[in-house]
Amino acid sequence: MEIPPVVIDRLPLYARALAALESRGREVVSSQELGQQLNVTPAQIRKDLSYFGRFGKQGRGYNVRKLLDELRRILGLNRQWKMALVGAGRLGRAILGYEGFAPQGFRIVEAFDSDRGTVGFTIAGLTIKDTADLEGVLSGSPVDIGIVAVPAEMAQDVIDALVRCGVRAILNYAPIAAHVPRGVNIKRIDPVLALQGMTYYLKNSAVGK
Amino acid sequence: MEIPPVVIDRLPLYARALAALESRGREVVSSQELGQQLNVTPAQIRKDLSYFGRFGKQGRGYNVRKLLDELRRILGLNRQWKMALVGAGRLGRAILGYEGFAPQGFRIVEAFDSDRGTVGFTIAGLTIKDTADLEGVLSGSPVDIGIVAVPAEMAQDVIDALVRCGVRAILNYAPIAAHVPRGVNIKRIDPVLALQGMTYYLKNSAVGK
Repeated sequence: MEIPPVVIDRLPLYARALAALESRGREVVSSQELGQQLNVTPAQIRKDLSYFGRFGKQGRGYNVRKLLDELRRILGLNRQWKMALVGAGRLGRAILGYEGFAPQGFRIVEAFDSDRGTVGFTIAGLTIKDTADLEGVLSGSPVDIGIVAVPAEMAQDVIDALVRCGVRAILNYAPIAAHVPRGVNIKRIDPVLALQGMTYYLKNSAVGK
Repeated sequence: MEIPPVVIDRLPLYARALAALESRGREVVSSQELGQQLNVTPAQIRKDLSYFGRFGKQGRGYNVRKLLDELRRILGLNRQWKMALVGAGRLGRAILGYEGFAPQGFRIVEAFDSDRGTVGFTIAGLTIKDTADLEGVLSGSPVDIGIVAVPAEMAQDVIDALVRCGVRAILNYAPIAAHVPRGVNIKRIDPVLALQGMTYYLKNSAVGK
């Protein structure tokens, strides 16, 4: 059975909330409490989890550690994932310096840039390689995930190159609706789109001039 | 009629694609072509737009400029929006330096940090103020949007303070499921969640060790 992508997207939220509960020593949690923490209805949580089997007992809530372990297994969160970053400008450097990836098993192992002034420099422990060599480097030592932090006009070419290297998951910071073949996943990190989705609700009360 | 939030979230994508078409001199576009560019079905586009009235004529496609103007008006993209950034660490500085906001009408007019070594410094033309003074500053000169780039454990307090200052749209970079009162919009920028939503699909073919 194919699980709806929106369900998959909610599972990491559940895992994160459960990990926080576990770190505070909690053993059991109800779908009500979990839902309240995450702004999701309890019914939604129960329905999402039902795709993966039976968790929890009616009226007794979920065993925190058991459900967390199961979600980690389902999502592949209990492993290390190798990532290649393409684009080591201002944004790329912030990504290289981001301390939130490693504790979650995401490790940037290669970084590329096309600027001659940047190639060869070491940033956050990684020597920046030339984007022109991307396919050669990654075909010899493959990665799981590509992070694209290049300008919009270069992004599709970079994504195509990553796909040719066998990368099947791409985190795209460039403001384009990129195309990938079936079987490749791409998610966009796009603060402007997020802002533009909120101004609709602000329209009638702007303070900006 | 209340428009589903997922519909509102797709409109900026349509606007962006239409702006690109307009800049290339295109006058008319079909829902097929627009859909193909954006990986959305033509039926979805027609349905989304139908919430806002009648656009385009059967078999003749959409007038690019007219539809773009209309979407900009609907989304409030034809104005300036004032933003306050809270958190001027590595991530906050990358946000301050991000060149994608201004051309879209989003302007950071205040930046705050709680680190004594950072307060008073000028970054990207803005003097960083003390987060302790946030409510005083913003009550005197309100903003439309708050950007939260503080560590997870401080994020909810900062969000509460922004809400008390009348901010009704928040872009949250901190990895927490924050709570806001009804009538306040919050969107999360969370690369780890995005990655964790993709590893589900990678699980059976990891190269990482």
